[in-house]
Amino acid sequence: MFRNFQMVSKVVFGRGCFQQLDGILAERRQNASSAMVFLVDDVFKATAFAGRLPVRGQDHLLWVNVDDEPKTSYVDALTRQIQQAGPTAGVIGIGGGSAMDLAKAVSLMLTNPGSSADYQGWDLIEHPAVYHVGVPTLSGTGAEVSRTAVLTGPVKKLGLNSDYTVFDQIVLDPDLIAGVPPLQRFYTGMDCYIHCIESLEGTFLNAFSQAYGEKALALCREVFLGEEGPEADEKLMMASYFGGMSIAYSQVGVCHALSYGLSYVLGLHHGEGNGVVFQYLEAFYPEGVAEFRRMLDKHRIALPRHVTSDLSSNEIDKMIDVALTLEPLWENALGPDWKRRMTRDRIAALYAMM
Amino acid sequence: MFRNFQMVSKVVFGRGCFQQLDGILAERRQNASSAMVFLVDDVFKATAFAGRLPVRGQDHLLWVNVDDEPKTSYVDALTRQIQQAGPTAGVIGIGGGSAMDLAKAVSLMLTNPGSSADYQGWDLIEHPAVYHVGVPTLSGTGAEVSRTAVLTGPVKKLGLNSDYTVFDQIVLDPDLIAGVPPLQRFYTGMDCYIHCIESLEGTFLNAFSQAYGEKALALCREVFLGEEGPEADEKLMMASYFGGMSIAYSQVGVCHALSYGLSYVLGLHHGEGNGVVFQYLEAFYPEGVAEFRRMLDKHRIALPRHVTSDLSSNEIDKMIDVALTLEPLWENALGPDWKRRMTRDRIAALYAMM
Repeated sequence: MFRNFQMVSKVVFGRGCFQQLDGILAERRQNASSAMVFLVDDVFKATAFAGRLPVRGQDHLLWVNVDDEPKTSYVDALTRQIQQAGPTAGVIGIGGGSAMDLAKAVSLMLTNPGSSADYQGWDLIEHPAVYHVGVPTLSGTGAEVSRTAVLTGPVKKLGLNSDYTVFDQIVLDPDLIAGVPPLQRFYTGMDCYIHCIESLEGTFLNAFSQAYGEKALALCREVFLGEEGPEADEKLMMASYFGGMSIAYSQVGVCHALSYGLSYVLGLHHGEGNGVVFQYLEAFYPEGVAEFRRMLDKHRIALPRHVTSDLSSNEIDKMIDVALTLEPLWENALGPDWKRRMTRDRIAALYAMM
Repeated sequence: MFRNFQMVSKVVFGRGCFQQLDGILAERRQNASSAMVFLVDDVFKATAFAGRLPVRGQDHLLWVNVDDEPKTSYVDALTRQIQQAGPTAGVIGIGGGSAMDLAKAVSLMLTNPGSSADYQGWDLIEHPAVYHVGVPTLSGTGAEVSRTAVLTGPVKKLGLNSDYTVFDQIVLDPDLIAGVPPLQRFYTGMDCYIHCIESLEGTFLNAFSQAYGEKALALCREVFLGEEGPEADEKLMMASYFGGMSIAYSQVGVCHALSYGLSYVLGLHHGEGNGVVFQYLEAFYPEGVAEFRRMLDKHRIALPRHVTSDLSSNEIDKMIDVALTLEPLWENALGPDWKRRMTRDRIAALYAMM
């Protein structure tokens, strides 16, 4: 049984295409009593970009804070706030993976009862989301094309994985990622690089995921190991898109599973957490880790060290629990008998190195 | 202004995934009084594959003949026949580019009044099509992802280009292309190869089209210049998909424009027509033509010669008229001042060589 993969319905790509968002939303504003809700990363508050948001009439502009990665409680609070304000025609998420995942999650929770924590898992969502649009201002996570909205809940870090999660529209404007701070750009780009390695080295790989993964990997190499060219932002944006598509028939692997545990307990951001984990995964991805080290050197990145050294054994246990929840990731990485190869002790030993 | 590209909504990929078509259609069979219409290339009549078609209850199975490429008159006749039989829940096109384009065109004409000839052009379709599914049994044209349904009409060969043309669902099963005769496989594969060259060498190119075009080209090279591996069918299927996606923000070019004229007057199939034309386009695509010749040699293909030598000057004039209709193709190939560079005389001289 192969997944019948839900694609983003509409894609606009090009430098400056963000100015088309107003026209794109106009087609969806047929009901005068319903509003567009913009969820925008609050780093853009008081920037020139804030003035370019096509907020009209009774629309709501909500600045979202993603200093911490999105929590189910934050999604639930935003959903209540939006529901109290009246009917919603659409949700537009503008920012990096966290802001886009917030928008995906809110668009789902506007039509599905209960708490977003009830839907952490695979295909638990029952009703289609309201119309939702993703506008990345940071590239690498693949959140613009993925069928997940990753959330930290009361007991686990796990996404709302469903066909309904996928955006109806994405706006890919390379101009929007031009101002990202170098360290954040690097970590987020490495999320894409690690996606590709984990997808291409995984047991789930097929020709569809391979075609996307190989091209995404080639683009990552051009961006992070090649000469800094004028098209680097375009290439990084396409790498993120292709890396996300590569997961369609594949999965991520060991690094993402361990990184989820690290983020859950330490609050480490996903990209940074991936970096901390990936450097110790030579046993699983020897060539990828060696190339990653060359990228670290070239960009003079010093990864955090000893992040787990002060943790209690309870906290370590919780990290292991969270990591082991991600069964499809382990199966992709290590095959169907992964449980024999990846014991709690082995995970603990890996975490101890970090 | 960048195109807001309409994507195929759902994609299933994998060897054997054709057996999932029945389940996929089941979700659309909510209204018991409406039927699925299967338009299937009649080469499959009396084959084992015919027994695998998920035709149920009041569904219609129509064997379509694509010895000649689809005509508007054929689309109109099929549409009338289907309308007389009752309401339609969906149209499933199974075959190569011609059969898929027939299905796309019929699904559009079931909801748009008049003749399909009225809609040959760009964005002339007014109403969404009925649900339509594409199942390629031949790879290379990119018809599975394109926003056109190429038709030969009373005055021109030109597609129904619109967002509504795009399939709602495609089923990409590499098993289905295993039995294609080698010559047809080659010509159809070369359609993809030529798409890529024309897209990558065109003036419309951007990073989106480039990422898809470069990977499609690499896959074509693996399939047609590399060793014959067990995954050749998977790769060819992905090359076709990526080649089609590469056209999203780009266009084809000189070869396709001239080939349309050739097909219109001589009835030459698209893939064969492309081959006849492309060999004489060294002035426009020097490296591509040289590599194409290596592919011809490796596969021992002898292209038809002197196909235009018996044509009247009226027929030559008609070929030139049809070729010149394709303005976006010429502009992509030669830039905004293409009319100065591509005169009727120059086109006539090119046709005279063929």
